[in-house]
Amino acid sequence: MRANIKRNGQRRVVIVGGGLGGLKLASSLRDTDYQVVLVDKNNYNQFPPLIYQVASAGLEPSNIAFPFRRLFQNRKNFFFRMAEVQRIDTEEKAILTSIGTIHYDDLVLAAGATTNFFGNKNIEASALSMKTVGEAMRLRNTILQNLERAETEDDEVKRQRLLTIAIVGGGPSGVEIAGALAEMRRTIIPRDYPDLNASEMHIYLINAGPRLLGAMDEKSSHKAEKALKELGVEIIADCRVTDYQNHSLILEDGDFIHAETVIWVSGIKANRIEGIPVESIGHGGRILTDSFNRVKGMTNVYAIGDQCLVEGDEAYPQGHPQLAQVALQQAANVARNLIAAGRGRSARPFVYRNPGTMATIGRKKAVVEIGKLKFGGFFAWLLWLVVHLRSILGVRNKTVVFLNWMWNYFNYKQSLRLILKAES
Amino acid sequence: MRANIKRNGQRRVVIVGGGLGGLKLASSLRDTDYQVVLVDKNNYNQFPPLIYQVASAGLEPSNIAFPFRRLFQNRKNFFFRMAEVQRIDTEEKAILTSIGTIHYDDLVLAAGATTNFFGNKNIEASALSMKTVGEAMRLRNTILQNLERAETEDDEVKRQRLLTIAIVGGGPSGVEIAGALAEMRRTIIPRDYPDLNASEMHIYLINAGPRLLGAMDEKSSHKAEKALKELGVEIIADCRVTDYQNHSLILEDGDFIHAETVIWVSGIKANRIEGIPVESIGHGGRILTDSFNRVKGMTNVYAIGDQCLVEGDEAYPQGHPQLAQVALQQAANVARNLIAAGRGRSARPFVYRNPGTMATIGRKKAVVEIGKLKFGGFFAWLLWLVVHLRSILGVRNKTVVFLNWMWNYFNYKQSLRLILKAES
Repeated sequence: MRANIKRNGQRRVVIVGGGLGGLKLASSLRDTDYQVVLVDKNNYNQFPPLIYQVASAGLEPSNIAFPFRRLFQNRKNFFFRMAEVQRIDTEEKAILTSIGTIHYDDLVLAAGATTNFFGNKNIEASALSMKTVGEAMRLRNTILQNLERAETEDDEVKRQRLLTIAIVGGGPSGVEIAGALAEMRRTIIPRDYPDLNASEMHIYLINAGPRLLGAMDEKSSHKAEKALKELGVEIIADCRVTDYQNHSLILEDGDFIHAETVIWVSGIKANRIEGIPVESIGHGGRILTDSFNRVKGMTNVYAIGDQCLVEGDEAYPQGHPQLAQVALQQAANVARNLIAAGRGRSARPFVYRNPGTMATIGRKKAVVEIGKLKFGGFFAWLLWLVVHLRSILGVRNKTVVFLNWMWNYFNYKQSLRLILKAES
Repeated sequence: MRANIKRNGQRRVVIVGGGLGGLKLASSLRDTDYQVVLVDKNNYNQFPPLIYQVASAGLEPSNIAFPFRRLFQNRKNFFFRMAEVQRIDTEEKAILTSIGTIHYDDLVLAAGATTNFFGNKNIEASALSMKTVGEAMRLRNTILQNLERAETEDDEVKRQRLLTIAIVGGGPSGVEIAGALAEMRRTIIPRDYPDLNASEMHIYLINAGPRLLGAMDEKSSHKAEKALKELGVEIIADCRVTDYQNHSLILEDGDFIHAETVIWVSGIKANRIEGIPVESIGHGGRILTDSFNRVKGMTNVYAIGDQCLVEGDEAYPQGHPQLAQVALQQAANVARNLIAAGRGRSARPFVYRNPGTMATIGRKKAVVEIGKLKFGGFFAWLLWLVVHLRSILGVRNKTVVFLNWMWNYFNYKQSLRLILKAES
């Protein structure tokens, strides 16, 4: 099987998943003695922080997705394979994929996490998630189609339902998409849908905890809540969602929200790969590792990013937060350790340095926390972008991507609201 | 049903189809005494001349698709409705659509044409067409997926098949996509797919007639054939395709081409709408009209563009060619006649003024014929674009669109080769 790339005498690292962590690791091993094989089910990397803008039709999918093959053009000893990974065979030191067996010397699992519906089948069948560009495209198509349907719907109850969007989950994703949709209502509806009454459109943000952005400082929560309320978002706090039936979201207190569109950003679970010992799977499906990101009970197998849970860090007894910065730093540390091993040097345990956290609300508001420094505004948004851009891609791509984003950001009102589907 | 927009005392023109003709007509009726209702199954207009570039991953879908609602923002007495038109009810003077009944005073059918597989079910099931942005996205996804599959395919016969593209139809669309794919093979494959042997990739262009671009001058045909051959396209002339079975295209002489990808650009047929008298349907499903584009046997119903066949023009006894310029000129003339009717003035019959024909081959070659003037090159391509852009959209959109295209055109090597699908 040609999936199994020819050996060239170099030690081979197989990376499963080309998200922020996987990509960072592949980049960090450039010009080393490692042959790198990157496996992903898509042929492109996607930039998670801006997926909500694709969902709200502020950016095109192609603005935040980059083909792996182009990113690694002209790079030697790098191989990309588009495939679904089915199982790890530790005896053979190989992964079994949809395109055949790929052998490894070192295996790094960086396949990230997916939406967690916590077993509720009705919600899983009806709610929209927002973890991938593909899901964002579906969300955008649904929202735009419902606006079209609403405009020709006589029945007031049905129309109201088509115009109601319920967002479940008060973390950064929920806050960001709520803000973006509220701005869409304010700026786009009156101009694009003159027959619709924008005030008939309701955006609910339902949070299980008492305040939005629970992982951030209370002041940030209040800023976010104030900004969203000003934008007209209806926030429901301290409330769990129990089911979705007959176009209605059912809340734990027995209340209903009639909403055709439910966006579920309430939790994630690590992507599952067969062949990992059951005792090495922890909370939320995360793969347990030691402080060197080595998977418990396995040899030469590492896990990084959202998919893993590093044990033994006293500052983070429950594991590190599933954030981009953690994945990037873990990738850098694993790369460092792999290079060190090749030179007979010792490995360094992973220590997370929190560069700060952030969430954007609408387009000119954001909240940032860097240590004790807490601030908001457009500069915060820009800072966030720069920090993350720094971590990925080459200089040329970085520039093109940055200019592209800026252009799209400032041309928001110019953005396209296309219901685009590949025909089948 | 709110689909049926409120009457405001104005005479209402309902336009079915927002292609070049429908859009031109809607634009031409701006600031007149007509209420305009545009009905289309998509929420965007697409620019057909560049669909082949979306198919070959040279342009993003959003570069050549524009939401109707944005195009007509702030325009009074204009209504867009996203709907499929099912039937015309002449007694009620209404169209029946997927969103309900819409009444008209004047009805203009401008729903264009679709791919004609001439009844061959196997080809229809397997071949890819290239008439819409959605179809182009599917074609692009298929070609990129087959390249990924080929790179890991050991079996030489299967690999060869994955790498073979057979284009059926030697008109402008066939010539354009053949040239674009041949350039992709030359510039993209070696850089993006280092494990693939570009010389294993075959591009066939199969033409039923003796020469490519049969509607153009012989010199243009020869230029196109020479250019395509230089790009490595294998041209098969004077040959009909009879079937597609077991991954093989079957030619009338009994020969086979093993090809996973078959692109069918061999013929079109007018889109069908129920409720038109059988005797008013002509060759290729085209709706027969008089020289004022009035549908035969119907009252206050017009048909324009690819969907119609104007009878009585001595210069075009078989009807006008199904080209953008014909649609645009018919739209302008129908608009003029509608306005004239409102003022009690007489209608003017449609007379086609051929501004020339053109086809592009690859990215720096094109052939143009304007009367007796025949020339080629990049300037020809630019001229074509300007001519068509002039006919559509507003000044601001025109500028944005033009700059966008130019940017994308010159950044061809930068273009993204994403396999993008909305998840469902």
